[in-house]
Amino acid sequence: MNIGLDMMGGDFSPLEAVKGVQLYLKGMEAPATIFLVGDETRIHPLLKEYSIPSGSVKVVHAAQVIGMDEHPTRALKEKPQSSIGVGFQLLATGQMDAFISAGNTGAMLVGALYSLKPIEGIQRPTICTILPKENGGTGVLLDVGLNADCKPENLNQFAILGSLYAQHIVGIEQPRVGLLNIGEEEGKGNILAQAAYPLLKENSQIHFIGNIEGRDLLLDKADVMVCEGFTGNVILKLAESLHGITKNQRIVNDYFERFDFEHYGGTPLLGVTKPVIIGHGISRERSFLNMINLAQKMIASDLLGKMKESFLS
Amino acid sequence: MNIGLDMMGGDFSPLEAVKGVQLYLKGMEAPATIFLVGDETRIHPLLKEYSIPSGSVKVVHAAQVIGMDEHPTRALKEKPQSSIGVGFQLLATGQMDAFISAGNTGAMLVGALYSLKPIEGIQRPTICTILPKENGGTGVLLDVGLNADCKPENLNQFAILGSLYAQHIVGIEQPRVGLLNIGEEEGKGNILAQAAYPLLKENSQIHFIGNIEGRDLLLDKADVMVCEGFTGNVILKLAESLHGITKNQRIVNDYFERFDFEHYGGTPLLGVTKPVIIGHGISRERSFLNMINLAQKMIASDLLGKMKESFLS
Repeated sequence: MNIGLDMMGGDFSPLEAVKGVQLYLKGMEAPATIFLVGDETRIHPLLKEYSIPSGSVKVVHAAQVIGMDEHPTRALKEKPQSSIGVGFQLLATGQMDAFISAGNTGAMLVGALYSLKPIEGIQRPTICTILPKENGGTGVLLDVGLNADCKPENLNQFAILGSLYAQHIVGIEQPRVGLLNIGEEEGKGNILAQAAYPLLKENSQIHFIGNIEGRDLLLDKADVMVCEGFTGNVILKLAESLHGITKNQRIVNDYFERFDFEHYGGTPLLGVTKPVIIGHGISRERSFLNMINLAQKMIASDLLGKMKESFLS
Repeated sequence: MNIGLDMMGGDFSPLEAVKGVQLYLKGMEAPATIFLVGDETRIHPLLKEYSIPSGSVKVVHAAQVIGMDEHPTRALKEKPQSSIGVGFQLLATGQMDAFISAGNTGAMLVGALYSLKPIEGIQRPTICTILPKENGGTGVLLDVGLNADCKPENLNQFAILGSLYAQHIVGIEQPRVGLLNIGEEEGKGNILAQAAYPLLKENSQIHFIGNIEGRDLLLDKADVMVCEGFTGNVILKLAESLHGITKNQRIVNDYFERFDFEHYGGTPLLGVTKPVIIGHGISRERSFLNMINLAQKMIASDLLGKMKESFLS
């Protein structure tokens, strides 16, 4: 399998990306060939410095770079030879099986939505995050920001995508799906949640357990937690802030250690035809390693095939 | 001043309510007469047991009780002699200056909205909560669940109400107002946030600092944080859960200790013509004490007069 990695994306690239690749290749199972997309004059010296054998990676030159603050659509149009632009060309034409970048998030989303198609039947692709559960488990929250305004059917589709992700990537056999809401009973909530509830209830592809509330997000109630991207993004960023706060408070605790986003590496874009992973701008070697591992798992488990199957008919 | 307290509301009433009153009367400044609304046959023995002098309280008999799970509108209609029903009658007719209950939240809201009027000019009353800031400060978040779906102008009004609350109750001279959003720049966010931004920006009654994100909620960025009640309620309940989680993780930390809702007592209903405070069902003596103190502060600062003034013209 061929995994593409944007070597120019993120605040500490290409150095930290190279270090992440080194960690990956040192691992016991490293079956993928990593395509390193970016400025070869900057990549080659680092490969030498970090003793990365040329057979296990493939450098793909990209002469341009999209900056972190550039306007996504404009940048992609004006810089077709950027690492993100080249990455999506290779992904769309099947030369790579997944693409990872810690670069301009907007450009990654726009690039993915324009160069790849949504899976047939899916109205809106989505991004999800992992939420550490206090009992040691792992939850999946989605959407976390791609779809700030949603229709009820979008939430219903997120539930299917999140369930497949929880099953095949997180390893939860029968993921419990909860609708994030502001009351426990059916009929509670805003207009969207009220309308989404019956769709989720009647959806035979998921194991719907009803509404969950803010207090349940970190507890062992639902494995897949569904909401529109506004609330989801606020929760994601609030949860991420807890790691820094506990560090600042000099709290040493395994559970809050799990709120370090580096453990998860990046956010997968679900609902498009190929695996795409979007990393944090401040990604370091461990994040890059984890994103490569996540891409590998998405390819090996044929997650995308399973998603396509679910939305057939 | 006369502060009404529902003695039958909450899981541990009337005992914990009586204990809260005792704590209040023991305090250095206890200028208010507390109206104890509820079943006198249950209240009088407790007053004796806790040596509460009859001059400092006034027992108002209410023969009925609205249960925690009763349907609010129906219960209020069928039980006019309930402690909540009687409380709102006394409040509406000016015999009491504030009313507090840890009972059925829905009944408190319905009772307040029907027996009191919204302040002239206010489209939607709101409820707010305190969020402890990591630097030791205190933030005000609103709406936290009363208005699950909002119009942009509602958020603009919440900003004014929250600013006055922060100023006169929390003691922040010029509260910074942030619009909770999923991006920093103007133009980001869902349809509601995009439309609310220019209203807040042009509002000369508040000190608007722009968008804030989930990661800013617990940091010293904005004093008043405005959002619709769906997201706000999820945040409130997530924040409340942090206290139990840190306790469970055996973390001893002053900052997370501040996530114990008992420190704040109850949620004020803002935008109606009289002070109304709604407590948690599991309120204990300290919560009741804090709710009485909050009511006293709302009366003494003439918060309601200031709100009425702000919405004149």
